[in-house]
Amino acid sequence: MTHAGGTIADEGTLSALGEFGLIAELSALLSPGPGTLVGIGDDAAVLAAPDGRVVASTDFLIEGRHFRRDWSSAQDVGRKAAARSLIDVAAMGAVPTGLLVALAAPGDLPVSWARGLAEGLAAECARAGASVIGGDTSRAGSVLIVTTVLGDLAGRAPVLRSGAAPGDLVAVTGVLGHAAAGLALLQAGLPDGPLVAAQRRPQPPYDAGPEAADLGATAMIDISDGLLADLGHVAAASGVLIDLSSARLAPDVDLLAAAHALNLDLTDSGSTPRHPSALAWVLGGGEDHALAATFPPRAALPPRWTVIGEVCNGDGVLVDGQPWTGSAGWDHFAISE
Amino acid sequence: MTHAGGTIADEGTLSALGEFGLIAELSALLSPGPGTLVGIGDDAAVLAAPDGRVVASTDFLIEGRHFRRDWSSAQDVGRKAAARSLIDVAAMGAVPTGLLVALAAPGDLPVSWARGLAEGLAAECARAGASVIGGDTSRAGSVLIVTTVLGDLAGRAPVLRSGAAPGDLVAVTGVLGHAAAGLALLQAGLPDGPLVAAQRRPQPPYDAGPEAADLGATAMIDISDGLLADLGHVAAASGVLIDLSSARLAPDVDLLAAAHALNLDLTDSGSTPRHPSALAWVLGGGEDHALAATFPPRAALPPRWTVIGEVCNGDGVLVDGQPWTGSAGWDHFAISE
Repeated sequence: MTHAGGTIADEGTLSALGEFGLIAELSALLSPGPGTLVGIGDDAAVLAAPDGRVVASTDFLIEGRHFRRDWSSAQDVGRKAAARSLIDVAAMGAVPTGLLVALAAPGDLPVSWARGLAEGLAAECARAGASVIGGDTSRAGSVLIVTTVLGDLAGRAPVLRSGAAPGDLVAVTGVLGHAAAGLALLQAGLPDGPLVAAQRRPQPPYDAGPEAADLGATAMIDISDGLLADLGHVAAASGVLIDLSSARLAPDVDLLAAAHALNLDLTDSGSTPRHPSALAWVLGGGEDHALAATFPPRAALPPRWTVIGEVCNGDGVLVDGQPWTGSAGWDHFAISE
Repeated sequence: MTHAGGTIADEGTLSALGEFGLIAELSALLSPGPGTLVGIGDDAAVLAAPDGRVVASTDFLIEGRHFRRDWSSAQDVGRKAAARSLIDVAAMGAVPTGLLVALAAPGDLPVSWARGLAEGLAAECARAGASVIGGDTSRAGSVLIVTTVLGDLAGRAPVLRSGAAPGDLVAVTGVLGHAAAGLALLQAGLPDGPLVAAQRRPQPPYDAGPEAADLGATAMIDISDGLLADLGHVAAASGVLIDLSSARLAPDVDLLAAAHALNLDLTDSGSTPRHPSALAWVLGGGEDHALAATFPPRAALPPRWTVIGEVCNGDGVLVDGQPWTGSAGWDHFAISE
């Protein structure tokens, strides 16, 4: 199904290749996985769902809003699109199995960019044990990707946002604040280093989702909008208060270095909170796709889970018993562009 | 979760309501179905997949490309978005069970329009026995919807495009050409009548998909791009020639009336083919989402299936043994906008 000769496709645009040519190009880069019973090329895909239930979630990734083509390679965009979706089923305690990808793009998009996108999608799916099983293409003024992930619970009860109870521990795994700090560095014209890499290629801890379910997690959520915002969803759904300890959320050396590079947090020595800008990345930065979960008191957690607070009676999310007054989270329709 | 008081939401815009307010508004209109184990509001939905396999497909519906807000109501757009996806799993022989909806829209879109969209999505899902189980929202310059449908095979083997064999019958169920003729009428400023209704609200024959599988269909496809184009996919995937009989595809009285209203086919009396413009709608018009299937010779088909041709050795699609020279099908990246 690859384009005859290959060279025209390598140098051409989507308009020149046409919709069916594009689908053939991308399909050749997207190998079916072991659960793919019918893959790309029919009216629909067929995927194994051995549990008898399927977990499903859908997400936008929009040029200019979630990525910029001058800041991220096509492979990075593909990885990010897949990562954002794959972690959503992991956050239910499920194993990601399949991904459907809807790609709208300008007619003058280089085919090489679309190929890079497919390579990134395939690579990130492979990290999670899943594969791309289907998709759609259309034309639009800028690149827009909608990913739909499917997953299998393998007999586990789904871990909801609503199960946290007073006395539970709150724990996280994965990084916090790196993608947000990386974005600040990119915006300041400092495009190198590990935080910028974290912004371009988040690496969610997919296997920690089923692990948390097996450890008895009472609630779980993917940190996509920011720790405080997302734990706010858990608190609201569970009817509880979550109190975090800032001592457990101390910004790491990379975040402190980024704040220094950006001339932030220069005058806060000895004040409370320490390093307010770096801490704001930890508390308010989305896009790293860490997992936060609540566990019964005295749960024995593996080292990659860090206890950051506890569940109490009440409502909302506090930091050291106080409301957080810095910036946190975002609302897609409220932010001006 | 509905907006306090309701009146602000009824009169407001998406920007005023915010992302989480919008999701709450829409969720209230989207009732979970019997297979919805975890619905809207968590990181992912959980849907029953009793067969142990899940059928999945994803589709764009884009303002200005697939619909116009001045030609279709929000309810109609919701119905069409759902219909286009739901029929894709029926075309595999499966029963649609769940739909995920990604909605990108301008900040100034009236909330009432988004509510109408949700009502249309819910109504069309109900026609098919499915329900909306999840989604995502974002902002964009115009309305863009991506629907992902899930379905259950209930023990059936999926009916692929690749199973047609020489000697098989080719049959269709559902209407052909009405949506295309309706579009021509709308473009000519003739916005009323059954064909325009078919363009605004296609009514795919969902239950005919599993029925065809049970009748032994060897191949099946949803007619979305046009009968000739879509049967071309079956012919290519199966390695066969499909020969259609124009006598079995005679335009119905509605199509003849539309051709008359548009001053088409006025001089073709006695020529071959009869009514070329009306026949072009039948052969080339997409968007009605009829089903075409191939069946073993001498299959006993219920009356709603019309035999329109046969499968032969060779390749491609012919009409009365000849290549069709009229217009047929479309390519999303090749058509100028």
